[in-house]
Parts: sequence; C-alpha cells; structure tokens
Amino acid sequence: MSDQGTPPRMRRGSAREAKRAQRLAHAAQSVPFITRKIPLYEVLDEEGLALIEGNADTILEEVGIDFHGEEEAPAIWREAGADVQGERVRFPRGLCRSIIQKSAPREFVQHARNPARSVAMGGRNVVFAPAYGSPFVRDLDQGRRYGTIEDFRNFVKLAYASPYLHHSGGTVCEPVDLPVNKRHFDMVYAHMRYSDKPFMGSVTHPLRAEDTVEMAKILFGEGYLDPASGKPRTVITSLINANSPLTFDATMLGALKVYARNNQACLVTPFILAGAMAPVTIAGACTVTLAEALAGLAFVQLLNPGAPVIFGSFASSVSMQSGAPTFGTPEPALVLYTMAALARRLGVPFRSGGALCASKLADAQAAYESANTMLPTCLAGANFVLHTAGWLEGGLAMGYEKFVMDADQAGMMHTLLLGVDLSENGQALDAIREVGPGKHFLGCAHTQANFESAFYRSPLADNNSVEQWEAEGSKDMAQRANAMWKRMLREYEAPAIDPAVDEALLDFIQRRKASFPDSNV
Amino acid sequence: MSDQGTPPRMRRGSAREAKRAQRLAHAAQSVPFITRKIPLYEVLDEEGLALIEGNADTILEEVGIDFHGEEEAPAIWREAGADVQGERVRFPRGLCRSIIQKSAPREFVQHARNPARSVAMGGRNVVFAPAYGSPFVRDLDQGRRYGTIEDFRNFVKLAYASPYLHHSGGTVCEPVDLPVNKRHFDMVYAHMRYSDKPFMGSVTHPLRAEDTVEMAKILFGEGYLDPASGKPRTVITSLINANSPLTFDATMLGALKVYARNNQACLVTPFILAGAMAPVTIAGACTVTLAEALAGLAFVQLLNPGAPVIFGSFASSVSMQSGAPTFGTPEPALVLYTMAALARRLGVPFRSGGALCASKLADAQAAYESANTMLPTCLAGANFVLHTAGWLEGGLAMGYEKFVMDADQAGMMHTLLLGVDLSENGQALDAIREVGPGKHFLGCAHTQANFESAFYRSPLADNNSVEQWEAEGSKDMAQRANAMWKRMLREYEAPAIDPAVDEALLDFIQRRKASFPDSNV
Repeated sequence: MSDQGTPPRMRRGSAREAKRAQRLAHAAQSVPFITRKIPLYEVLDEEGLALIEGNADTILEEVGIDFHGEEEAPAIWREAGADVQGERVRFPRGLCRSIIQKSAPREFVQHARNPARSVAMGGRNVVFAPAYGSPFVRDLDQGRRYGTIEDFRNFVKLAYASPYLHHSGGTVCEPVDLPVNKRHFDMVYAHMRYSDKPFMGSVTHPLRAEDTVEMAKILFGEGYLDPASGKPRTVITSLINANSPLTFDATMLGALKVYARNNQACLVTPFILAGAMAPVTIAGACTVTLAEALAGLAFVQLLNPGAPVIFGSFASSVSMQSGAPTFGTPEPALVLYTMAALARRLGVPFRSGGALCASKLADAQAAYESANTMLPTCLAGANFVLHTAGWLEGGLAMGYEKFVMDADQAGMMHTLLLGVDLSENGQALDAIREVGPGKHFLGCAHTQANFESAFYRSPLADNNSVEQWEAEGSKDMAQRANAMWKRMLREYEAPAIDPAVDEALLDFIQRRKASFPDSNV
Repeated sequence: MSDQGTPPRMRRGSAREAKRAQRLAHAAQSVPFITRKIPLYEVLDEEGLALIEGNADTILEEVGIDFHGEEEAPAIWREAGADVQGERVRFPRGLCRSIIQKSAPREFVQHARNPARSVAMGGRNVVFAPAYGSPFVRDLDQGRRYGTIEDFRNFVKLAYASPYLHHSGGTVCEPVDLPVNKRHFDMVYAHMRYSDKPFMGSVTHPLRAEDTVEMAKILFGEGYLDPASGKPRTVITSLINANSPLTFDATMLGALKVYARNNQACLVTPFILAGAMAPVTIAGACTVTLAEALAGLAFVQLLNPGAPVIFGSFASSVSMQSGAPTFGTPEPALVLYTMAALARRLGVPFRSGGALCASKLADAQAAYESANTMLPTCLAGANFVLHTAGWLEGGLAMGYEKFVMDADQAGMMHTLLLGVDLSENGQALDAIREVGPGKHFLGCAHTQANFESAFYRSPLADNNSVEQWEAEGSKDMAQRANAMWKRMLREYEAPAIDPAVDEALLDFIQRRKASFPDSNV
C-alpha cells in the first residue's frame, strides 16, 4: 500500500451546496482583518538581532543617510542632535531608535468609511492589501498591456469583492491613459467610490498628497476629526519608499511631510534588491534596511510626534547573472523573518511580503514564488501585507487571474493564522470513539456537525478525479481564475455612498483638474 | 515611486558563466543531506502537545488498534502487557511510548552503496526523496498514461542527477507493464544499478521484502554486516502505512516484520485524510495519527529492540463536498507542525510532507499547493521527506515536469535551512561603508568576491525582461521543465558498479523470477 487513497465519496453538489458556499463567503466577508493566534517564527536569536541593530547604528553614525533636496530636513535633524553636512545626515548611535520609541504608536487604526472595515495595524493583526504600482496589466484574453483607469477600477472592485482582502490598496495599477499629474484624483476617487475598505494615498508629489487629504476630509466629513483629541483620524496609509541605498528623495519626503503633519500613516519602506541596493548577503541587506527605516521613521516622529507609522521592508535579490530582480527565493524569506523581528523590537507595525514573483504568467513559477513569499510573510508576523494579490513580473504587471488566485491563498492564510482549535469539539475524542478502527468518519455525528466550516474551501483548486476534470475541459488554475474574476466583476455591486458626499468629491476633482493644465511629468 | 525597480545590469552569460554553473552544481551535488541551522517552528505549546498525547493514550486504552490478520501480534502484545481481544489490541496508558523510548534510536544512518551518499535520519538532519507510489505518469508530450519500468528507471535517473535529492526513494512510479508479483525485482534493481543513493524496499508482500533484503546483501557484500556489532547495517528504509483509522493490515505488518528483524528501517506512517480516516479537526487528526504511530513503532521495537524506525505522518483533508482528497490547504500544515513536535517529544526521526498537490497538471495550483506543503515540512523539522519531487493528482500521477520543478524547490530549501550567515563577510559592513548612499553594490569588491555563491540560482525560474522572455518563446515554467528533464536524461551517466555484483544481482533476479509463475495479484 502506498500513500494514495480514495476515500468514500459524499454526494455531489446541489442547490443546498451552493447556498452553503454563499453563507460561508458571507461569514468570511465579515472579518475586517486577522488577529493571529499562531506563534511567530524568527530565524535569529537575541544576539543575532542585536548584531544587526549595532551594525545599522554604525552605518547611521559613520556613513549616514542622504535627505536629497529636502529643505526642512537639515534644520530638523540638526535640532534633533544629528550631524548634518549638506544633504548627508549622520546620527549618534541610538538617536533614531529613541526618537521613534518616544512617540511612535505601537498600534493604530486606519479608519474606513465603512466603520466595520476599519483595520488595526500592528500587534497581532494582519491586514491584506492588493499589489501596488504596476504600469502593465495582464489577463488571459488580452495578454499584457498598459493599465488604464478601467483596469484600476476593476481591481478596486475585485479587492472590494474579495472576502480575504481587507484593504483597497493604492496604485493597484497605473492608469496610463490619464495624465500623470491628474490621475491621482481618479485613483483616489475609485477607492472611495467603488469600495468602502481603507485605502492608500498619492505619493508622487506633495500637492497630490494634499489632494488626497482634502478628498479624505470630504469623504469622512465630520468624522475626519476625532472629537476627543481634535486631531485628524488616520484614514489614509501611504507608501513612502526610500531611494535605497541610504537615500530619501524630495518627492517621497514631500509626500511624507504632508501625511505625517495630517496624522495620516506613513509606510516607510526601504526598497532593497540585495546585490544592487545592498550587499549580496542577508545580514547586509537587513542592516541597510534597518538603517534606512530608522532614519525615515524617526523623521516622521520629528515632524509630528505620535503620527502613525509602519516599518516597511521590500527586499529581494537580483540575479547575479543578469541583474534582474528575483523573487520567491530563500534569501528574501530569511530577510523577511529577520526584519519582522527587528520591527517588533523597535515597537512599530511592520509591513513586508505579499505574493511576489518574477514570472510573467500566472503559472507554476508565479505560484511557487508567491507562496514562498506569502507564507514567510504570515509566519514572520507582518502586520500590513501590500502586494497580497495580483503581482506579476517583479511588479511590472498586475494580473487579473493572478489576483483571484492570490486572494484564494490569502483566504488560506486566514485559516492558518487562527491555528489549532483545542476545544472539546476540536479534540473530537467522541468521534474517534464512535467510529473506531477500520471505519470512516464521513457520516459520523461530529463530521455532520462540523463539515461546513471544517476546512478552508478553495474556489479555484480542482480536487476532482482526472476524468471529471477532463470532462470539464482540462482547465488549469489560470483558466478557472479567468472565469472567476469575470464573474466577480459581473456580480459586483458598489457600496452605497451619500450622494451629497459623492457630488462634493466629484466637484472637488473637477475644480482641481480645471485649475492647471494636463502634464505627463 | 512604487516598489518596482530595475537595477543596473551585469554582463550576460558566457562560457565562463557556464563553467561557474557547473562548478556550483558540482558543489551542491556533494551534500548528502542537509543539517538544518534555522530554528524549528511549532504551533502548539507544551500544554497543547500534552493534551494530544493524553488523548492518543485514551484512544489506545479505550478503543485500541486492530492488528488485522497478523498471527504473531496477539502473543507479542499480550507478552508486552497489552489487552488483546481477537485482533483488537488495547494499551495501558504510556505503554507504547515507554517501549519506543526504551530502545528506538533517536537517529540512525541509512547507508548507501556509495558511502559519500549515506544519509543521517533524525536530529537536525533533512533528507529529500522523490514521490512514491503513483500508478500513472504525466509529461507534456504524452500526457497522462500508466507508468512503465522505463518511466521508473527514468525517475531513478532523474533523482540520481538531481543535486538536491538525497535519496532514490522507492516506488517512484508503478511499473504497470510488469507482473505485480515480480516487478519489485526490477524496481529494487533499478535503484541499485542506476543510482548510488540510498533507497526503499518492497512492502507489498513479506516475500518481496525478503527479496529486497537478499538483494541488499548481494549489493553491499561484506559491508552488509557491521563488523563491530555483527548486526546488519541499515541499508533499506521502507514505507509501512497504517490502514487508518486504527488498523494495521497483514501485508504491511508482514513486510514490517521482515525489515525490523533484519535491522532495516521501518517508516511507520498513519495515512490520514481528515474527514475520512480521522475527525474533521486538526487536533482529532493528530490524535489518530499519534495513536497509530505509537502502536506501529512500538511493535517494531518489540520485534527487534533497537531497530531503526521513523515516525511518519501523511495527513491531508478531504473535500467535504466531493470526498476528494485536497492538498496544500492550511489544515494539513497545522497537522504537520504539530506531528513534528510530537515526534520530537517521542524521540524518533520524523517523516512528513513533500510537494503534495491535487492538481492534475504542473500548473499554478500544483505549485501553490506544493509550496504550501514543502515549506511547513522544512520549518516543522521533518527529517525524511518522501514525495519531495514529482507528485501530482493526489499521488495518482508522477509528473516529469513537476519532478524537476520540485527538485528546484528542494534546492531552495537547502539555502533556507542553512539560515543567516552572521560572519564578518556575511555582515558586509565594509561593503556598505564603501558604496554609501545612492550608489549600487553590483561592482563593489564584496559583491565581486561573493556573487557566485550569493543567492540560490534556480535553473527553471525566468527572471528576464518580458521582451527577452517573449523572444525565447513565452514559455511557462512547465515548458522549461520539459526541456530540463529531457536534457538531464540525455546527459545521465550511470554510477559505476562492480560487474561481479551486478552479475550476482541479475542472476538472483533471474533465478527468483523463474521459480514461480507471473501473477497480477
């Protein structure tokens, strides 16, 4: 006997079955974010983590960070006690850490316009958001092409309809059909209108960050300010990438300043491809990442003590043969485990990971690489997971099929992160007593009582016999995903919005767009 | 700026590059097994694990295990202190555990005919073996068909040529073109002749187990006996599946007795599809698995105290809709983490996992599911990983493309399991000092000194630009894998064997085959 077995079959699908699936999907949809119950996984011990921290301090002290073209930074840093020479800022050991630990919140809530969808960032919480930033999109019907605002809206709708994505994300793809200097209006509006999940703001120019904040004020109305503190509620999280290695540029810092001063969350992310922006070693990549994050996070706290921040790490390797970015390999997973632990020691929420891959297609390469990133992301304890769904081709393309496939994997992570049920029902001793040797459990009372919610049920995996699979057209997962995203878009219904708010948003956009000429810079 | 980046390119492939790849492949080939350096991951704490152990004891005491049709078992168990009623054996609490802990080795070596390929089972060691037991094979050219002895030999050759598979496995596919009662001769011979890695024995009949032992005696000659102890060296590991739930059948027990009494390793594996052979809960599946394993492992120790054993767990779920087995879902991963911890507490080597999937094809489903099994396998601390490569369709088919794709993933696990290099070179502080803000690391001295071995290099992942990928035919990973396994078979060279040994093996087989008629039972 080998490891193959064909258990007795239960009766096949029916209308009742379809109803059950609906109920389950509904139940899943009501979780605004995950609170993990399983332990964290760490690869380095106390000594190893302290070594990386010490090295990051050495780099901050000896080499420093360039705050490129940022007018306020020199005075702010000098005032804080750093050594400023032109754009280069060098930091006494421990300075950045102490600034961050003095005021940065360990956890914060990003409010959604639907309060039931607000997300808690940090601690044991996990928030999944779609992929971000692709100029191209890909689907099985039309192949690869530049993204448009229609694609953008489609991905917002798909994320809204996905029970396992908690966040609407930001630049879910670049709407290349719109002018560069005005597309942020349509992007932010799409998140506000076609979803009621939390979203991200524009970072490509300080004025665009200000537009995002203004639109948020319209959307949230009186709810924008917290009546207790009188301060703005955090309703936007925005991605501030370092220009690695060891540099922040004026554009990103400009957006950072707008968001920080408005109490909106800054996700400060060193963008590290080891071998290019950092040494070819794991410890080296971690050191550069930590040094950059410390400087960026501390800068936010100097601008507005207490402003919410997330410590981001985007890390992978480059191929030492071609220089191309690679994903899903073991080295970035080791960086991820290490960085998550370092962020915990610092005491701020952590972002990393997602369903990263280098593959051009939603094929086996894409899936191996995505799973090899997503599982470490969840085990390491990432709090905010950008790029959970859709990522292809090193982020150059957003895939429709890949999106729903990854969202299915995000569903699996929901189950994984909840761990093992050790209740009496979970132990199921009576079921084992009842069935006994050589019998099967399909019909026993415990199975009947639990089977609806017993196992994660993938809408895309085909577990049927090969004969049935062939009768249904021998489709691979990407082909099944193609049917699924189309059905989701067909069945999509926009969340309700106060017509007056919608009108005010559209009016704001119209006035702002009319106030300056289109440009693609 | 988003998370996309295109680092500077290095110069492209060359003859020098090809030589480097060869050197690397050679270096990898010299690792006979992995000794893990990263920490283990566990999902349950001491209390949770003790609860499962207590429940397993309760099942062993109250319900018991059927030793079906096994003539010696009743007397052996009665003698050991168990309560025997016909075929049903009930065990005083702790009896099985104490029998196992009294004599079962915590670690053992399975010797290969090439001593450089012997593997250490248990402890921090990890051994990868191919998938096992499929009646069908699949490749892109011929689709799905029954396996033949030619396929069997091909998979033995591919495993031999794979630097990341340490073990030749057993029934790498069923050679359905040979009579059932004689195919074991050709299978065992193929492992002995076309590989020099360790292998598994026949378990489908006690006489076939004896044939396997006889052939091993011929192959190892004088080396079969350990001169120090006078006992046989362990040169065969064999898969003894329980007929779950809570039953061992006479066939498996017959093979187990032969191997145990010859000091060959028994891999005792409860075969659990939760919902069919166990309750629909994780804790319930773990309880049944542990109870069965305890009884089976203790039986080996009663037969021959000190005989090498491995605690196996093959666990997945069935679809509660169709009854079909499912793989790569979160529940079996949670079972895997739990069982690995329970095996460590028992103090015996552990087998589980592999690249399990339900997909019919080497598509994204196959890859997601395989990665979602393989990564937990490695983090949980499995020592022997059957089904590392090739598994498709719930084990019904062995895939040629899937085989080389999974072997690539096994390569990644080699790097992952070695963890983070914290040496001075690993820390790379001087490189960060040298490059500084805003520059890149591709040309720096540290990168030049380390780039050959810096990152795991997949032979199958395509990381090139979309333009180059299109110019090369827009191939998906399975298509690239198709070219790879064909090249590996073309370039395969059999390891040398003493012609006298080969002749003796062939002579033994011929005589044995002639001594009884063919049969397909």
